[in-house]
Amino acid sequence: MVPRYSRPQMAAIWSPEERYRIWFEIEALAAEAMAEFGTIPAEAAAAIRARGAPRAAAIGPAEVEAIDAIERVTRHDVIAFLTFMAEGIGPEARFMHQGMTSSDVLDTCLAVQLSRAADLLIADLDALLAALKARAQEHKLTPTIGRSHGIQAEPTTFGLKLAGYYAEFTRNRARLVAARAEIATCAISGPVGTFASVDPRVEEFVAARLGLAVEPVSTQVIPRDRHAAFFSALAVVAAGIERLATEVRHLQRSEVREAEEFFHAGQKGSSSMPHKRNPVLSENLTGLARLVRSHVVPALENVTLWHERDISHSSVERVIAPDATIGLDFALSRLTGMMEKLTVYPARMAQNLESLGGVVHSQKVLLALTQAGMSREEAYAAVQSAAMATWRALGSPEARSFRDNLLEEPGVTLDAASLDAAMDPQRDFTHVETIFRRVFAGG
Amino acid sequence: MVPRYSRPQMAAIWSPEERYRIWFEIEALAAEAMAEFGTIPAEAAAAIRARGAPRAAAIGPAEVEAIDAIERVTRHDVIAFLTFMAEGIGPEARFMHQGMTSSDVLDTCLAVQLSRAADLLIADLDALLAALKARAQEHKLTPTIGRSHGIQAEPTTFGLKLAGYYAEFTRNRARLVAARAEIATCAISGPVGTFASVDPRVEEFVAARLGLAVEPVSTQVIPRDRHAAFFSALAVVAAGIERLATEVRHLQRSEVREAEEFFHAGQKGSSSMPHKRNPVLSENLTGLARLVRSHVVPALENVTLWHERDISHSSVERVIAPDATIGLDFALSRLTGMMEKLTVYPARMAQNLESLGGVVHSQKVLLALTQAGMSREEAYAAVQSAAMATWRALGSPEARSFRDNLLEEPGVTLDAASLDAAMDPQRDFTHVETIFRRVFAGG
Amino acid sequence: MVPRYSRPQMAAIWSPEERYRIWFEIEALAAEAMAEFGTIPAEAAAAIRARGAPRAAAIGPAEVEAIDAIERVTRHDVIAFLTFMAEGIGPEARFMHQGMTSSDVLDTCLAVQLSRAADLLIADLDALLAALKARAQEHKLTPTIGRSHGIQAEPTTFGLKLAGYYAEFTRNRARLVAARAEIATCAISGPVGTFASVDPRVEEFVAARLGLAVEPVSTQVIPRDRHAAFFSALAVVAAGIERLATEVRHLQRSEVREAEEFFHAGQKGSSSMPHKRNPVLSENLTGLARLVRSHVVPALENVTLWHERDISHSSVERVIAPDATIGLDFALSRLTGMMEKLTVYPARMAQNLESLGGVVHSQKVLLALTQAGMSREEAYAAVQSAAMATWRALGSPEARSFRDNLLEEPGVTLDAASLDAAMDPQRDFTHVETIFRRVFAGG
Amino acid sequence: MVPRYSRPQMAAIWSPEERYRIWFEIEALAAEAMAEFGTIPAEAAAAIRARGAPRAAAIGPAEVEAIDAIERVTRHDVIAFLTFMAEGIGPEARFMHQGMTSSDVLDTCLAVQLSRAADLLIADLDALLAALKARAQEHKLTPTIGRSHGIQAEPTTFGLKLAGYYAEFTRNRARLVAARAEIATCAISGPVGTFASVDPRVEEFVAARLGLAVEPVSTQVIPRDRHAAFFSALAVVAAGIERLATEVRHLQRSEVREAEEFFHAGQKGSSSMPHKRNPVLSENLTGLARLVRSHVVPALENVTLWHERDISHSSVERVIAPDATIGLDFALSRLTGMMEKLTVYPARMAQNLESLGGVVHSQKVLLALTQAGMSREEAYAAVQSAAMATWRALGSPEARSFRDNLLEEPGVTLDAASLDAAMDPQRDFTHVETIFRRVFAGG
Repeated sequence: MVPRYSRPQMAAIWSPEERYRIWFEIEALAAEAMAEFGTIPAEAAAAIRARGAPRAAAIGPAEVEAIDAIERVTRHDVIAFLTFMAEGIGPEARFMHQGMTSSDVLDTCLAVQLSRAADLLIADLDALLAALKARAQEHKLTPTIGRSHGIQAEPTTFGLKLAGYYAEFTRNRARLVAARAEIATCAISGPVGTFASVDPRVEEFVAARLGLAVEPVSTQVIPRDRHAAFFSALAVVAAGIERLATEVRHLQRSEVREAEEFFHAGQKGSSSMPHKRNPVLSENLTGLARLVRSHVVPALENVTLWHERDISHSSVERVIAPDATIGLDFALSRLTGMMEKLTVYPARMAQNLESLGGVVHSQKVLLALTQAGMSREEAYAAVQSAAMATWRALGSPEARSFRDNLLEEPGVTLDAASLDAAMDPQRDFTHVETIFRRVFAGG
Repeated sequence: MVPRYSRPQMAAIWSPEERYRIWFEIEALAAEAMAEFGTIPAEAAAAIRARGAPRAAAIGPAEVEAIDAIERVTRHDVIAFLTFMAEGIGPEARFMHQGMTSSDVLDTCLAVQLSRAADLLIADLDALLAALKARAQEHKLTPTIGRSHGIQAEPTTFGLKLAGYYAEFTRNRARLVAARAEIATCAISGPVGTFASVDPRVEEFVAARLGLAVEPVSTQVIPRDRHAAFFSALAVVAAGIERLATEVRHLQRSEVREAEEFFHAGQKGSSSMPHKRNPVLSENLTGLARLVRSHVVPALENVTLWHERDISHSSVERVIAPDATIGLDFALSRLTGMMEKLTVYPARMAQNLESLGGVVHSQKVLLALTQAGMSREEAYAAVQSAAMATWRALGSPEARSFRDNLLEEPGVTLDAASLDAAMDPQRDFTHVETIFRRVFAGG
Repeated sequence: MVPRYSRPQMAAIWSPEERYRIWFEIEALAAEAMAEFGTIPAEAAAAIRARGAPRAAAIGPAEVEAIDAIERVTRHDVIAFLTFMAEGIGPEARFMHQGMTSSDVLDTCLAVQLSRAADLLIADLDALLAALKARAQEHKLTPTIGRSHGIQAEPTTFGLKLAGYYAEFTRNRARLVAARAEIATCAISGPVGTFASVDPRVEEFVAARLGLAVEPVSTQVIPRDRHAAFFSALAVVAAGIERLATEVRHLQRSEVREAEEFFHAGQKGSSSMPHKRNPVLSENLTGLARLVRSHVVPALENVTLWHERDISHSSVERVIAPDATIGLDFALSRLTGMMEKLTVYPARMAQNLESLGGVVHSQKVLLALTQAGMSREEAYAAVQSAAMATWRALGSPEARSFRDNLLEEPGVTLDAASLDAAMDPQRDFTHVETIFRRVFAGG
Repeated sequence: MVPRYSRPQMAAIWSPEERYRIWFEIEALAAEAMAEFGTIPAEAAAAIRARGAPRAAAIGPAEVEAIDAIERVTRHDVIAFLTFMAEGIGPEARFMHQGMTSSDVLDTCLAVQLSRAADLLIADLDALLAALKARAQEHKLTPTIGRSHGIQAEPTTFGLKLAGYYAEFTRNRARLVAARAEIATCAISGPVGTFASVDPRVEEFVAARLGLAVEPVSTQVIPRDRHAAFFSALAVVAAGIERLATEVRHLQRSEVREAEEFFHAGQKGSSSMPHKRNPVLSENLTGLARLVRSHVVPALENVTLWHERDISHSSVERVIAPDATIGLDFALSRLTGMMEKLTVYPARMAQNLESLGGVVHSQKVLLALTQAGMSREEAYAAVQSAAMATWRALGSPEARSFRDNLLEEPGVTLDAASLDAAMDPQRDFTHVETIFRRVFAGG
């Protein structure tokens, strides 16, 4: 992922240095397990740990380059790493990696990296949920117009809008937790997964130490349906980011102006139009969501490896594993900050709510008319007629309220007081508390 | 989905007749709930049920056409349906749909349809799992070569291969169960989800009767992250189908011939080449998997509806909801039949296993050499040298076994008996039982 | 594609009856070619044509079912068809299909179908272009606000907006023409494309009669990069539909109301809210665009067939070839009708244009200030300050125009007359003619 | 793109330093144009060039960081750059960028970058085409088996296989040339594309100097259908790479062994199995192709910008523009080297060709039998029967050739000599020359 969209903690997971350190940890743990089960001398395992650990800890750019130089000859990354480590460990290094295959190291390492990445993403979601909850509580009863098809429909509250996003991100959190469990498995099972030359107890030992589950059956590789499910979950989270970002973009547009991203002192919206205050954060999030969503296609294609494995997934994962997790981490963090600082304009919300002459109360009138005895079809026709008359005259000198037009509609038997009662906006908010209880219960 | 890839039970879920029947059930239940909570007369709810149920049950092609005709005027599908039903129900029909919005019906109906579809798919998976388990047990110890990169690697058993697929489809089953829970929610909350004109207890009542959960917060629509997660799960299942189909395609290719799809009497493989027996089922499954996987992209794009909803998701779902579920049902069923009847050729497996002169035992030799004191690098070089010599002469008059080449390799101190012991294929199968226990435990 | 989104002429291309008729035409032409080049008796070719043509022409649902019945035994569609035809043609039928392979028929047929589909789509685009051009000319100088980031930016004209879409669909037309050429090739080259048993002149003969190019090198199949390019072109067209549909959705939203889809007498916008007039056509087009775009993923995956071919592409194409062409045909036609009948509200456009107190002229003022000697940075700061002051007071009793705020801005040396001249909206339209000439030149 | 898959020349196009240099060039050219058309003083343009050019040329990491620091305040990249340049240019800098908008610079710069990238990719394709042509000529008549469905079908030549790939990459080259033309346009048209404050002749001037076409109608941005078409073309090229890579992977698999990627001295195929020589380059190419193909989804989503533009496309393009072009450049170069050095095993090809007892000649026999008077159905049955008998006994002591089985087949009237003539493999190669002429004509 480009630096512009990277945060250090997540990026660190994917550095070559960190990868090599995790590789060493896996190899050292495997050696310790083999020593425990009598396959290699205990002294060998101790030496691997004692002399390997500082060497691994000291891996920096120069050591990465040294390993790369070996790889240019061997054309094999794990062998290059083992060769590099052996130089520091000495003769006992020959007991490293016994009966193992490269993928035992690579795939278990990826499981560690993705698990850590998932932990950060879950923490990101917790921060976002906290921000959404605070703003939802703050605007629990701030009236605003609900819109379907982009057309004003009925009143709702801004808090209810946010409660909907909170509920979605609660689901997204559960999806990430499930996705983390999907990929947190360890495989140390040898070239085709038969444990031909490595004891299954080694796998159990290493898995336990790394906080991973044992992969029940691996075939040199950990099966890639797990990773496809993982990246799919990230894509669904990204889609949720996009939905909220799109909401903000709509609310900030000039004709709506109900909310606005925080505009920093010194910020310039446009190189040419000094008046512009653009929702650039939410637009940026829309694009980032596209990126994270796009990874699901190659992740699904990666599932079909040939026979016990091929390596076509590798180049894909070298790119999408960091890009998806770094990109999503950045996007979640940006979204959280944006929602925390979002400027909300209740007065403008009220103004928009009233801008259509009251037609947004048409459903409540329709109900009152049918309850007063009109057939559904007649009531619908009368209400639509009055609404259309109101709509057509909007902004003109002949403008009349929906209520006044209704009173003149043939067949409408309700009087003015009954209509006012039917159109009382407070009726729309009767059940806000119910919904809040459902969404924020226990939290 | 084209009829060619449809099975009747799944297709029936998506017929217009069935959709209208579900719509009626939702409307009738909602009326009963409203009667119970005093919003409409009990007699009205009774009449809606009494006169509506037979009318709904009798919906066939002619009635579908009648509803379509009304829709051509109203340009609104739910209103057309309500008008059609009202003709049969009489004046009490005005108490139907009170305070509700179309999406209350449409989205709850979709939840019912997708839940039923998920139930069929889960049953499909159970059948597939049974088939895989039976064949895995049958070939638990049938030796075959494991391959990575398409290159023969080490021995495994055909049962182990199948156990891997069994494990994957067990995970897929769990994903489908989770996906079913994702979309099995009911929303009856009115135009923007505020329950402005409908009691939340109506939603609870209907949800309970339909076996659905209550949607905590809906915004006219049930949020589409649920559906995106659902179609993503289907895509991961499809990817698993593709992986197994690809395995069969590889096993059946002329040079491998380790397994073969059942070839029916009368079947013709090619219009021009009478000798051809092609893996057309597994190739077909590969294509079907591409289709089902492709639905994840528009499903993710559907999440971002504007404000409280727009209707852009609708045309997408009219196509992908039936196509993905019908296509996956067909594919799972085809795959199950294919695996049940798969012709397996153990003799050919044994032949392939031995075709490379024994180099497939190189890892076990490598291990024996390092355990006998060679450094890992020297042992690797010696083994690679002997393997390459064996490989190069394959099929030529100078062909020699890997074992014989090893004995002449400088630095190799193991004698023939030790080499034979190291290369004993039974060593590869020591842990088959362990893996089977992990995979089939409790089943 | 579901009937709801199908138009008869395009759907007819994809009927089984039509497919069989094209198959027959290919076989009959091939027989005539073989007769001409002396491979089969002239009488045989004549008999195939004479007795086959009426049989093919008479294929209806019953005959399709008869062919299907044969296929259920042979499990091969082309053999089933040949068997069915042979029953009507008699003994000369044995000269049909000589040296050919099924794909010679299937792929050449698909080329015919896709070419015809492309012709319809190009005609659809011509109709759309005509509609866009007419509306663009009509509103060439209708002032409206241009928006970037959803924020009002500078004036433009509604005609200019439409000219941009016209230009995009002109490019889309060129892409479709190129895509048509991509897939309009004929292959009659035998089982692996070597012409082992069929003369290359047969291919040339049939190609010429069908208006197709000769496929330079086929490998049983016509290579699928052609189809991937074809479906990619359709996806780009669909994306263009989505862009225009999204524009209309924005223009129709309650707070903008600059344009509106035609609302039919009798149409109902909502089952619950009679006042609703929703942009359902453009929302529907957005969803259809998602569908057509989604086909590009499996089309790209279809390219990689194994060796000389596998048949994994077939199930994909059975679905996406009709779905993409039928869906796009329907969408283009719907879009054309929508644009022809779009209700445009110039008065509301003017109102929106003036709604921000004149800040939309900030760039022209910025330029005038720098030309009058201010540094770019100072001018930017002054203009931004006056714009923000205007923006903040919008709708309040203290509202002041941007012009008046500018006059009080320190450092601004221009007087009122100069500012008025700088902010003259007609300056924005000076080059409309230039752009129209570029876009509509020669058309 | 990760460094592992980057080549320097392509990566350089996407460095921040190079981007700023192109930005300056656009600004300097625009200033020169404005001077020529009298909008700004000629001395100002001269000063911008004279003092700006060395400042731009000297931009290195430190200057990039300085610009970044300004952006952290302004939150606007182009304004940050202009501010940085103004420091070096002095007061005349206020004449830079007059009447322009940021996107005039950004989008024209992207056009320059993508054009240059396309030029490199076209050169890459030329190198690949040369390699494929050379290998095709070399193996023009090297017999090998053609396979459909992975099943041996009929003989072909290895040169013919390569000719097919050559033809596909010739089409891919044409697609890239067309894609380059799609995106090579210049827009300098101001905030909403009306040229309100900038003369259209400035755009023409800059376009001509940069070798770009004029964008007929831009709306602050160059329309993104162009970029969607561009990335789609790259995806189709990537799919072609994948097809060829998959061919090589199949040819190298242990049971086929007809070709092999070059194996370097010192290379290690596996950390555990020293005998392994894996097709890692072609597997890697398969993964890279997935990556490049995946970019088409967000590129298509980028088309729908709101109104005159939103900035959601930007984050997408910051990632996919370099990733797709760098990834494809790397893949094409790797593929070319792989094909140049591919080890081909004609002896093994011959061996495989004969491995099925001659059934691969069944189509030619079928033809001979029908020409000798058998009905197509009877001939097919006889040939299939003999082929199956041959197939079943393959590798067993009872193995018999297809020819011998045919002679015993009831109804087969051809004698041994006629059968041998019918099965002569040279008949399969009669038209190789024709195909080569078609494919390599003029090249």
